[in-house]
Amino acid sequence: MANEINRQWILRRRPKGKLQESDFEFRETPLPEPGPGQVLTRTLYLSLDPANRMWMNAAPSYRPPVEVGGPMDGFTVAQVVASNDPSFQPGDLVESENGWQDYAVLPAARVVKVRPRSPLSHRVSVYGVTGLTAYFGLLEIGRPQAGETVVVSGAAGATGSVAGQIARIKGSRVVGIAGTDEKCRWLTDDLGFAAAINYKTEQVGKALPGCCPDGIDVYFDNVGGETLQAAMFNMNRGGRIVCCGAVSSYDSGQWNSPVGVPGLLIQRRFRMEGFIVLDYYDRREAAEDELVAWVNDGRLISREDIIDGLEQAPRALIGLLHGENIGKRMIRVAPDP
Amino acid sequence: MANEINRQWILRRRPKGKLQESDFEFRETPLPEPGPGQVLTRTLYLSLDPANRMWMNAAPSYRPPVEVGGPMDGFTVAQVVASNDPSFQPGDLVESENGWQDYAVLPAARVVKVRPRSPLSHRVSVYGVTGLTAYFGLLEIGRPQAGETVVVSGAAGATGSVAGQIARIKGSRVVGIAGTDEKCRWLTDDLGFAAAINYKTEQVGKALPGCCPDGIDVYFDNVGGETLQAAMFNMNRGGRIVCCGAVSSYDSGQWNSPVGVPGLLIQRRFRMEGFIVLDYYDRREAAEDELVAWVNDGRLISREDIIDGLEQAPRALIGLLHGENIGKRMIRVAPDP
Repeated sequence: MANEINRQWILRRRPKGKLQESDFEFRETPLPEPGPGQVLTRTLYLSLDPANRMWMNAAPSYRPPVEVGGPMDGFTVAQVVASNDPSFQPGDLVESENGWQDYAVLPAARVVKVRPRSPLSHRVSVYGVTGLTAYFGLLEIGRPQAGETVVVSGAAGATGSVAGQIARIKGSRVVGIAGTDEKCRWLTDDLGFAAAINYKTEQVGKALPGCCPDGIDVYFDNVGGETLQAAMFNMNRGGRIVCCGAVSSYDSGQWNSPVGVPGLLIQRRFRMEGFIVLDYYDRREAAEDELVAWVNDGRLISREDIIDGLEQAPRALIGLLHGENIGKRMIRVAPDP
Repeated sequence: MANEINRQWILRRRPKGKLQESDFEFRETPLPEPGPGQVLTRTLYLSLDPANRMWMNAAPSYRPPVEVGGPMDGFTVAQVVASNDPSFQPGDLVESENGWQDYAVLPAARVVKVRPRSPLSHRVSVYGVTGLTAYFGLLEIGRPQAGETVVVSGAAGATGSVAGQIARIKGSRVVGIAGTDEKCRWLTDDLGFAAAINYKTEQVGKALPGCCPDGIDVYFDNVGGETLQAAMFNMNRGGRIVCCGAVSSYDSGQWNSPVGVPGLLIQRRFRMEGFIVLDYYDRREAAEDELVAWVNDGRLISREDIIDGLEQAPRALIGLLHGENIGKRMIRVAPDP
């Protein structure tokens, strides 16, 4: 194993404006060795998430920025190859932040053993960070009730599609906002959304009242910006806006805040609340059990957009930021064990 | 009584920018007579509230705009003079929206019988709209816990001073933001605030971290704008912003929204929620009982800024919008019965 190489994507520089492939550099390095209390893990799947783009900025966020000159950060499902910690054995399946590389050495405390799932890719999507983000954000902050109207932006993405389906399972009427007609058809025809708005061909602010004749009770916001603004004008009294992400800003550098803060919140008496899924991880096992049950009985569909090969990571993330994907985009870095 | 006159302040035109006395016109009209199901009430106290200014704009709000050519709107404590409805008798003490006039004829359904209080002016302040706004906004949305840090803007005003004191009663550490050193001294010396910031002589964004070394758990916002922005940068995870008002905008016409929506809410995991006190009125009697108990045992101070004479109303409201008042400003229109 000492002869093996570790392929990495290095962040060459902080991107200015839209992310480019030239912001990354491919490098081959020797396989690292775990020190005391550390484990060596092999990346199986690399999760691609819009928030990855935000981590690349120097600006403060909920985590330190990606280091220039080091491997790009990313959530991974991995397998333990060697362990110098008694709590891990070679072969263990784990969640970790290996980043954009074949192998990583991590302190055992930063690696979480997880149950295998079939297909294993569901570990990255519906049972991973994005599925749990949808689950906790929608149920803990959005709290949709039967008969309420729930609007989801980024609705054909990994988090949005799960959030919308959970709302539908809870008996809400769900309206999605997405960026292609194909995505919109998928939402209404396959996922049971009541309606879908293509924000690239329709004005969301004009389309929302027609799609939501009873107003909006819960808005699960993945995008921020103009779409958030349009939703705010249609919120019902007692409504909840789940502030999950702001994809419209990550790659554009335009962090446009909506107007009407606090005026609209007062007039229409609604709430906005931000969250990070990691804050709920003490309850993730129970959440996973519920998600598994919904998937198994066919009520929750996890669509995946799996791209083979670590070398594809930069262009796959750039494509994600341009909305190429339907469902959860990920890189299969190594074959399922 | 038919020979009596009814003095009124008429809204002559929608104010442009800062409110001026010339936006109003004083008029004397005959005493109106109640029709079937109506009551004639005499104004005792007229409440002056920053939100009055917002009601004068044509823009939609939580209530219809004041009609140009009609009497200016306003909350009042009044006494029934004549009644054509079986639920009211002459002499009954009521809350109503008589507006800026000596007498009003109102449908019985829009008049609420209230218990007398001593002094009667407390009916307008701590037991009236402003006190209840502080009570429900702070306790239902802010939910301050013992040991938490609560920041209140407009802290020497009618609502802010009550909100801050209730937070202190609940065991929170309270920091006030106000516009004169005299107001700040009142907050710390008389009301038990831990600290106070004069926003006209200090930069709130720079002063807040020093006054709130443990961050902000609850921000009770009466002003919006730059002060709201500064508070957002200091919110703790799980914090609550009570969106009560936006005084900084009402008279300036500048509805500047803070930056960092939704980004800051996500990073720092806090909540913003707007409310209107009327939504809680089904529980107002219990709230009033609790407020009375706090006032009677000396833990809650209701300071009042009572101006005699309906003719003073325009300049008193303009002064309120300029921050002249400490505590609750009101007009005594007729002597206590």
